[in-house]
Amino acid sequence: MMKISNALLTDLYQLTMMQAYFDDDRADDSAAFDYFFRKLPFGGGFVVFAGLGELLENITKLKFTDDEINYLQKIGFSDKFLTYLKNFSFKGNIYSMQEGGIAFPNEPILSIRGNLIECQFVETLLLNTLNFNSLIATKAARMRITAGDKILSDFGLRRSHGLGGIQASRASIIGGFNSTSNVLAAYEFDLKAVGTMAHSYIQSYDSELTAFRKFAESHPTNCTLLIDTYNTLKSGLPNAITVAKEMEKKGLKLNGVRLDSGDLIKLSKMVRETLDEADLNYVKIVASNQLDEFAIRDIIRKNAPVDIFGVGTNLVTGQPDAALDGVYKLSAVNNKPSLKLSETKDKITLPGFKQIVRFIDDDGKYFADAVVLKDETSIDEIIYAQEIIKTNPYKHINLLQPVMQGGKIVITIETAEGLREKVLQNLKQLRNDCKKLENAETYKVGISKKLSALQNELKNKYAGM
Amino acid sequence: MMKISNALLTDLYQLTMMQAYFDDDRADDSAAFDYFFRKLPFGGGFVVFAGLGELLENITKLKFTDDEINYLQKIGFSDKFLTYLKNFSFKGNIYSMQEGGIAFPNEPILSIRGNLIECQFVETLLLNTLNFNSLIATKAARMRITAGDKILSDFGLRRSHGLGGIQASRASIIGGFNSTSNVLAAYEFDLKAVGTMAHSYIQSYDSELTAFRKFAESHPTNCTLLIDTYNTLKSGLPNAITVAKEMEKKGLKLNGVRLDSGDLIKLSKMVRETLDEADLNYVKIVASNQLDEFAIRDIIRKNAPVDIFGVGTNLVTGQPDAALDGVYKLSAVNNKPSLKLSETKDKITLPGFKQIVRFIDDDGKYFADAVVLKDETSIDEIIYAQEIIKTNPYKHINLLQPVMQGGKIVITIETAEGLREKVLQNLKQLRNDCKKLENAETYKVGISKKLSALQNELKNKYAGM
Repeated sequence: MMKISNALLTDLYQLTMMQAYFDDDRADDSAAFDYFFRKLPFGGGFVVFAGLGELLENITKLKFTDDEINYLQKIGFSDKFLTYLKNFSFKGNIYSMQEGGIAFPNEPILSIRGNLIECQFVETLLLNTLNFNSLIATKAARMRITAGDKILSDFGLRRSHGLGGIQASRASIIGGFNSTSNVLAAYEFDLKAVGTMAHSYIQSYDSELTAFRKFAESHPTNCTLLIDTYNTLKSGLPNAITVAKEMEKKGLKLNGVRLDSGDLIKLSKMVRETLDEADLNYVKIVASNQLDEFAIRDIIRKNAPVDIFGVGTNLVTGQPDAALDGVYKLSAVNNKPSLKLSETKDKITLPGFKQIVRFIDDDGKYFADAVVLKDETSIDEIIYAQEIIKTNPYKHINLLQPVMQGGKIVITIETAEGLREKVLQNLKQLRNDCKKLENAETYKVGISKKLSALQNELKNKYAGM
Repeated sequence: MMKISNALLTDLYQLTMMQAYFDDDRADDSAAFDYFFRKLPFGGGFVVFAGLGELLENITKLKFTDDEINYLQKIGFSDKFLTYLKNFSFKGNIYSMQEGGIAFPNEPILSIRGNLIECQFVETLLLNTLNFNSLIATKAARMRITAGDKILSDFGLRRSHGLGGIQASRASIIGGFNSTSNVLAAYEFDLKAVGTMAHSYIQSYDSELTAFRKFAESHPTNCTLLIDTYNTLKSGLPNAITVAKEMEKKGLKLNGVRLDSGDLIKLSKMVRETLDEADLNYVKIVASNQLDEFAIRDIIRKNAPVDIFGVGTNLVTGQPDAALDGVYKLSAVNNKPSLKLSETKDKITLPGFKQIVRFIDDDGKYFADAVVLKDETSIDEIIYAQEIIKTNPYKHINLLQPVMQGGKIVITIETAEGLREKVLQNLKQLRNDCKKLENAETYKVGISKKLSALQNELKNKYAGM
């Protein structure tokens, strides 16, 4: 059992800034920070927002042990500040998009308000949790969109980033996967655990047929045979059929066969045909080996009869991006809106307390989003690039809702499987053009005139500094 | 505090195979497995082997709790097998290259021998640990080679893969980094923790100068100021100089200034010049913002006076590969050599118990490696591709040494900082052409004639199956 501290899972500068605030008597100053990302991953059109439940639970557990306090003293923090830290707990408020929601660049998906010290403190934990979970849930969702009703299984633990593999498996389920090979994630998060066999198992027997038979004896009701160890069509498949027929005599059914190499499209078609000829149309075909959403698309477009996709590396590492660029930016201090300028013009942040309004068209599809000031009512027009979008005939919903108040979680934390159903529902409301794997349509996210005016006012003020 | 089980951190199929072995009375059959990778990451010429200590320690802790056993029962494992699992502990032997060693494709870097069940069980934990640690240590080493004597700091926790960020920070140190912003990793692994300040800290004050002053008051002996919040040259730098001069009056010294945006080469030169003109030549320049080994190379080639590089995303995610393709393959069962064929000819594995022999030239540089059968003595020639390499005049060392015997660790587990010194020493023995960031020379790894003969013999045997 490895124990992991939430309190120390932070960048040192959070603690040094906290001490500086504390020393300057600013422990009661208030602040607001926004979480948002700038760039859509994978060249796609959306992000599945994930990791909120994990984040909130870990925020409630932020507590320094005596050993940790002693360590911080050793590396130079002041006794006064450490006394404060010892009694620290997060007491702020958090407003957020629902977990499993569909998010777009530059939207303040989550906003934290509290005192300056506690808001600063949670930055690293928040970014570490939300960036990674959202990256993997989004990658999984892309595969789900591509795979339709086929079964998707996460096989990635061996190539995942160490302990991050536990979170990756859970995020895969949130994004639309059915199951995982990761037993710890299945145990911790009540996910469906699945597994077949490795080549080594078959190699360990003198004969492939004996290996298959012994496995079927040990796992009579849950047996999937890996058929490419020696020769898929000449050896693996005939042996699997022999075992399937032997199982039938005992009233049992072989679950499936797995292909892990070669031309999955060609092989799956030939395997399906042979299985069907042997009256084994119930035996499923599992395919694995370097799959991603593009390989799955290819398999499906060519009508290859794969029933279950086992996806590893590309899923759990979130390739080719491997990171979501989410950031955490100050938007107000002591209730005064604040903004971060940048030499890159489009990196300017949105000041003040805000809300995200999502407009819905008559078909129930997302039409456009607007970032507005929190108290604004009746947004009829939003500013989008050089264009004004009329939102007048559309229904709208406010995406940011309280999820933590005074340090207490005020929503029900959903299970990964519950979140998956939410994601699937939400994705139905996203137009198909925004769901394309490549060259997806850019979903419109505008800002209100009032927010734009506030941004300009502060821009002018800071530009003079 | 989050608790993480080692025993369940596995793929389900390891447990299903283990039950099948157990049910087939094979609990006492012996096996040998090799760990190796096939493809060098990052287009480079070497891999820094890392994660061994972590792996060995976690293997000694493999133990199922009652709750875990109950869970496995619930998902269908047999009572008999679970009784066996309950008493399970790893009792096998492990032979390995030293942690921090320089490894090349297709070398059996680590070999496990024990009973079939225990050897199968550790596969996922082993791959998860070694693949990721080696990936990041290698990435870090590439930056170290590029950066020469400059200071390298890991700033990646916010973009790392969840809890994998803890391992990433440690592996960065092993690969040659000096310090990390990750407090938990620093605490757990006795690393040097470092940090400066964020833009939000400066924004939270009405004036940048006040923010700098307050920070210097709170951190008089360890103060690095971020100077690009408003305008690096017109505001940040003059304010930092003001504070540095105020510190001097108190007998204190400003540590450094940090640049986090813009043209780091141009800015660092201008900042250095201005600092030197103000007699502040001791103030260091820290640069961050999307750095990787290529950006660092560019900065150094152009003689930009950066003293400290803060590297985040590209380091801790191991971009652009994000995974090392290490695998774990059966090489013997009941002392009989075994081999895995593949449709891809170069994917064939090396059978039997093996040793890696490294030949060293008169300058102390690595000349070539040979994978040989364990008991072979006096290797004068090795087979490398179509070529025979004479190894006659060269000294040699055996790279695989016992690291675990009967489930007990028989080496001293080194600290990350100790391993870093080893890596730096080892890298000195690698020819410069093998250390190039791109188009690195391929280091020669051959096999002995006896191993080649055994491989051919088994190839012919299995091809008939």
